[in-house]
Amino acid sequence: MFLARVVGTVVASRKDPGLEGTKLLVIQPLRPDRTPAGKPLVAVDSVGAGESEEVFYVRGREAALPFLPAEVPTDAAIVGIVDHWNTS
Amino acid sequence: MFLARVVGTVVASRKDPGLEGTKLLVIQPLRPDRTPAGKPLVAVDSVGAGESEEVFYVRGREAALPFLPAEVPTDAAIVGIVDHWNTS
Amino acid sequence: MFLARVVGTVVASRKDPGLEGTKLLVIQPLRPDRTPAGKPLVAVDSVGAGESEEVFYVRGREAALPFLPAEVPTDAAIVGIVDHWNTS
Amino acid sequence: MFLARVVGTVVASRKDPGLEGTKLLVIQPLRPDRTPAGKPLVAVDSVGAGESEEVFYVRGREAALPFLPAEVPTDAAIVGIVDHWNTS
Amino acid sequence: MFLARVVGTVVASRKDPGLEGTKLLVIQPLRPDRTPAGKPLVAVDSVGAGESEEVFYVRGREAALPFLPAEVPTDAAIVGIVDHWNTS
Repeated sequence: MFLARVVGTVVASRKDPGLEGTKLLVIQPLRPDRTPAGKPLVAVDSVGAGESEEVFYVRGREAALPFLPAEVPTDAAIVGIVDHWNTS
Repeated sequence: MFLARVVGTVVASRKDPGLEGTKLLVIQPLRPDRTPAGKPLVAVDSVGAGESEEVFYVRGREAALPFLPAEVPTDAAIVGIVDHWNTS
Repeated sequence: MFLARVVGTVVASRKDPGLEGTKLLVIQPLRPDRTPAGKPLVAVDSVGAGESEEVFYVRGREAALPFLPAEVPTDAAIVGIVDHWNTS
Repeated sequence: MFLARVVGTVVASRKDPGLEGTKLLVIQPLRPDRTPAGKPLVAVDSVGAGESEEVFYVRGREAALPFLPAEVPTDAAIVGIVDHWNTS
Repeated sequence: MFLARVVGTVVASRKDPGLEGTKLLVIQPLRPDRTPAGKPLVAVDSVGAGESEEVFYVRGREAALPFLPAEVPTDAAIVGIVDHWNTS
C-alpha cells in the first residue's frame, strides 16, 4: 500500500455498471516526507475519505475486496485514512 | 485506475480467440493536467469509447471483470468515459 | 496490453514442467512510433508469432488464460499479431 | 520479493474492517548494498518485524496469503526477517 | 518473465510458515545484452538454480503456481535455467 493525498474527484456518467454508485477520487501518491511520488491515479473510496485528506490505498486484485460480494472492476481502492505516521 | 486519452486503434486478424469481437484501442495515460504519463498501451473497450475521448482504465486481473462470464485475456480495460475531473 | 516486436528466442532445457512444450520469445515493448519502451522480456507465444513480427502481449494473471486448462506459470503471453495500428 | 528496512509506523483509526488489528509498517525497499530502491510503502506485518529491522516483503495477491482465511485487503506484506544476505 | 542472473542468497530464520524449506535467491534482472535492468529482487527457486546461473523468473500470482498445492506466499519464482538466448 502507498500513502497518498486526495486531490480531486472524477465525474463519469458512462461507466461500467460495476462502478455505479462508487465515489471516484483522484489521489497523489506521497513519500513519507509528503513529496509527490509518481503520477496521480483514480481510486474508489471505501472509507469515506474527503478532499485533501491523507490516506493509504491498495492496488491490484485486493482493491476489489472491500466491495465484495459486489464485483467492482477497480485496481485501486482507498482503505484507510491516516491519523499520522512516524518515520525514523 | 488511471486517466487516459484514446489515441488510436489496433487491427489484428490473428489473435487469441478470447479477444475475438473486442475493440482494441491505443490509449495514452494522462496526468490530471493532461500531460502524458508513461507509454501508450492497448486496452479493450467496455463502454463504447471513441477516438480522442478522455477515459479511465483498469489494469490487471480486474480488467477481465467487465467481460465475464467470457474469459477475455486482457490486462487493461476502459471502464469509464470521463465527463470532467476536478483537482485542487 | 502493450505493443512489442519479437526480437529473439530463449532455449532452456531445465524449466518448470508447466512450461514444457511452450515457445519462449524475447520481445521488445514498443511505443506506437516504434521506439523501444522499457526492457525486453520473455513471453510465451499463444498465436504463432515469428521473428520480427509486431505483436501485443498481456501481463500478469491473464497471461495464463490462453493455455487453460493447462496451468502455465507465465506472467507474459503474446495474444495477438498486429496487422497495423493507427494513432492520431 | 524485495529487501527492505522498517522505517516507521502508520496509525489509522478509520480503515477497512479487514485491516483491523493488523500492524501497518512503513518500509523502504533496499538494494543488496543497502541503498534505497524506490519509494517507501506501507506493508502489513505477518512475522513480528520491528523498527529498523531488515526484512523482505511480498506484493500483490500473495500479500493476503499469510492472513488467510481472513481476507485482508493489502497488496504488501512482510513475510520474513533477514538474518543476512550474501551477494557476489 | 524476465531474464536474470543469480547473484546471492538470503538467510531468514523468522519467516512465514509457507516459505519454510524454500530456497531464497537474490537475482539481478538482465537485458538481453546482459546489462542490469532494474533492482535486484528475492525469488524462490523452483528449478535448482545455482550461483551465477542465468535464469528467467515469473512475477505475481503465477509465482506461486510451481509450488501448488502448497500455498507459498511469493511474488517471484525462478522457473527456468537458460541454456542460451538469441536476439536479433
